[in-house]
Amino acid sequence: MIKEIKIYKGDIIFCESPDKFTTLENGYIITENNKIKETVQELPAEYSDIEILDFSENLIIPGFVDIHLHAPQFENLGLGYDNELLPWLENYTFPEEAKFSDTKYAEEIYKKFIKALYMHGTARSVVFSSLHLESTEILADLFLESGLGAYIGKVNMDRNSPSYLTENYKKSLEETEYFIKKYNKPDSMIKPIITPRFIPTCTPELMDGLSKLSEKYNVPVQSHLSENLSEIEWVKELHKEIETYAGVYNHYKMFGDRPTIMAHCIHNTDDEIKLMKEKGVFVAHCPTSNFNLSSGIAPIRKFLDNNVKVGIGTDIAGGHTISIPETIISAIHASKMYSVYADRTFHSLSISEAFFMATKGGGEFFGKVGSFEKDYEFDALIINDNELSGGSNKTIQERLEKYIYFGAKEDIIKMFVSGKEINRERF
Amino acid sequence: MIKEIKIYKGDIIFCESPDKFTTLENGYIITENNKIKETVQELPAEYSDIEILDFSENLIIPGFVDIHLHAPQFENLGLGYDNELLPWLENYTFPEEAKFSDTKYAEEIYKKFIKALYMHGTARSVVFSSLHLESTEILADLFLESGLGAYIGKVNMDRNSPSYLTENYKKSLEETEYFIKKYNKPDSMIKPIITPRFIPTCTPELMDGLSKLSEKYNVPVQSHLSENLSEIEWVKELHKEIETYAGVYNHYKMFGDRPTIMAHCIHNTDDEIKLMKEKGVFVAHCPTSNFNLSSGIAPIRKFLDNNVKVGIGTDIAGGHTISIPETIISAIHASKMYSVYADRTFHSLSISEAFFMATKGGGEFFGKVGSFEKDYEFDALIINDNELSGGSNKTIQERLEKYIYFGAKEDIIKMFVSGKEINRERF
Repeated sequence: MIKEIKIYKGDIIFCESPDKFTTLENGYIITENNKIKETVQELPAEYSDIEILDFSENLIIPGFVDIHLHAPQFENLGLGYDNELLPWLENYTFPEEAKFSDTKYAEEIYKKFIKALYMHGTARSVVFSSLHLESTEILADLFLESGLGAYIGKVNMDRNSPSYLTENYKKSLEETEYFIKKYNKPDSMIKPIITPRFIPTCTPELMDGLSKLSEKYNVPVQSHLSENLSEIEWVKELHKEIETYAGVYNHYKMFGDRPTIMAHCIHNTDDEIKLMKEKGVFVAHCPTSNFNLSSGIAPIRKFLDNNVKVGIGTDIAGGHTISIPETIISAIHASKMYSVYADRTFHSLSISEAFFMATKGGGEFFGKVGSFEKDYEFDALIINDNELSGGSNKTIQERLEKYIYFGAKEDIIKMFVSGKEINRERF
Repeated sequence: MIKEIKIYKGDIIFCESPDKFTTLENGYIITENNKIKETVQELPAEYSDIEILDFSENLIIPGFVDIHLHAPQFENLGLGYDNELLPWLENYTFPEEAKFSDTKYAEEIYKKFIKALYMHGTARSVVFSSLHLESTEILADLFLESGLGAYIGKVNMDRNSPSYLTENYKKSLEETEYFIKKYNKPDSMIKPIITPRFIPTCTPELMDGLSKLSEKYNVPVQSHLSENLSEIEWVKELHKEIETYAGVYNHYKMFGDRPTIMAHCIHNTDDEIKLMKEKGVFVAHCPTSNFNLSSGIAPIRKFLDNNVKVGIGTDIAGGHTISIPETIISAIHASKMYSVYADRTFHSLSISEAFFMATKGGGEFFGKVGSFEKDYEFDALIINDNELSGGSNKTIQERLEKYIYFGAKEDIIKMFVSGKEINRERF
């Protein structure tokens, strides 16, 4: 096998752990076959013959990772936030998702959606599609064409949904299995993920079947957990025999039996949090969505203190923005308000903690993704911040802070995912 | 006097009152000498000879009004938010402001600042400069050149500040008077405003002198009020003889004796709120800043219910963004979290309420500004939202919601302030 070595030079910043940034001014990232060999301050002599991809005076940061968002809600961004979760689903989300029975509409919107992802620097995402098989295949094929990494789930829902969005559970399982078999390939940048919408919309038969598919094909799982108090009450009514909301997923062996992401996690009990830790369940922290739908604030410090894995989710279109930097800001804001109003003993999130969640934290779901350490896949954004930070002597961390808080997608001048440059003119 | 009539056509949306939007699809705004004569759905026959400025398929909305921000902190956007108010002032704000003793630096940064204002659609602003007279004159002159409207205050501070930012109170008063006399002209787009930084940094002698200047020249007042609990404690220690923080400003006749803006107002007592209502004091609601510095959430519903006037302030660089749309989103987020965590009886802010505050609410400080009603000055943004909302049948309100939540400054294609188009290539 030929070894392809590449060398990237620039002002490098990333988080190996949540508590601090690693920075290298005029540093070098050396990759071999698209994986990182080393990230160093001085270029070792052995590489002196190799041409350098020189991004001096630009920031080089890991590509962003978004572990919870709904592709078919892209057109709904910004709409309907005078509602809370359940009426919002009924009045906005479901009518828009129904349109994805039309594959032409799906193609049009999914191109816009993927373009928005790469324009905003999101290298990897874990995505809900709608329940429509064909449109979900279109989404997967467009992702493959784009070069971005993604887990994609055909949504399953066979109860408590509008009639126009209710599946027969057998057909739902057949289509899910078809989708898994079509896309579950070892070296692919996109992968299937089992996606029961949430407990209220999935019968026991459907949950059983999905659980078996997850086990049979060794496919991960994503769903929603404890976003809203009315939702939690509803789950309790539907499953009186099981103590907790998380317990219902666990009962069906879809709570960490395979890699699992649960979105929101605002109102979990201590027992649930303990279970999440034990079974390695990821929290998708969706602070903008939790603001918009008045859901509340997830106690992220508690998850971190209990060694529960946490990544960031934009949760469009509960979230109003597909921008990970804006979602990082909301994560910090939310934690600050939690510490002022809910629990004064909580330390709010620092910028490095939030940035970690948005890169290496969520990236762990993809393997070695989201950092510039040895053996990590080379996902990177080149950020020209000359105008943002120009003229003044700022540290690399300060320059990153300015980019996060006041930068724009236009500041990203290049994007690499798993070592390959993304063509950001594609769609 | 010649009557100059202009007619603007487009999809018009504005708020006459906080509770709802007024919309006119393919409507007309007719101005006479830069003031609005009427805003109508059908063009009256008498205007049939006049050429129409046709912005069909674009939104026409009032220019934004920002009633609290610090011009010399523009370079600090995004920096240092792991701190609360008092250490943040010491470590970030004051060292940056000190640089404005250098008029060259001031000119460079103030050009960037004003450019950011007009690129983001802020037609009017109420601005803190630094304590430096010459740099404040530069700021005022650049504002005049830009065509934007502004109140500009030379900051006063003569105690409890770093030695390099502490004035002699006599000199402070002399320079303030000089600035007032130079810029206090009846028909000017920019005006002086008396600006004691906040109670802890102003001696009784200085406050007395500023009060007299305010009375003598009939100049309005701006300052900070009840942003942070440590700050409130500090004021109590400094003025044991006066019951409340607001009471100290009131003692010096700088609390509504002339038009007055108080920024933040997070922790006010009921007596203070009553006084604000009686004396017509404006609240500058600065939600992003209050998030960033962990200050808390101002109970805006309470102010609205008590008929206290409220406008929006970005409060850069406590706020991390000079964008009013982003600050509108934060205002709504803050109110939702207040209703979840602080007081379940509070209704959160609707999109129209927040938009009202960012246009007509704060605009009232400037006179008839921030609406498209009769006799209002014509401040308007033309927004091309074809790509944002294109292809789908959205109402004008939904299009505005999409612009606020997911639009960008680049969507603003033209800007008018008091009837004159702003040259957005100027700086």
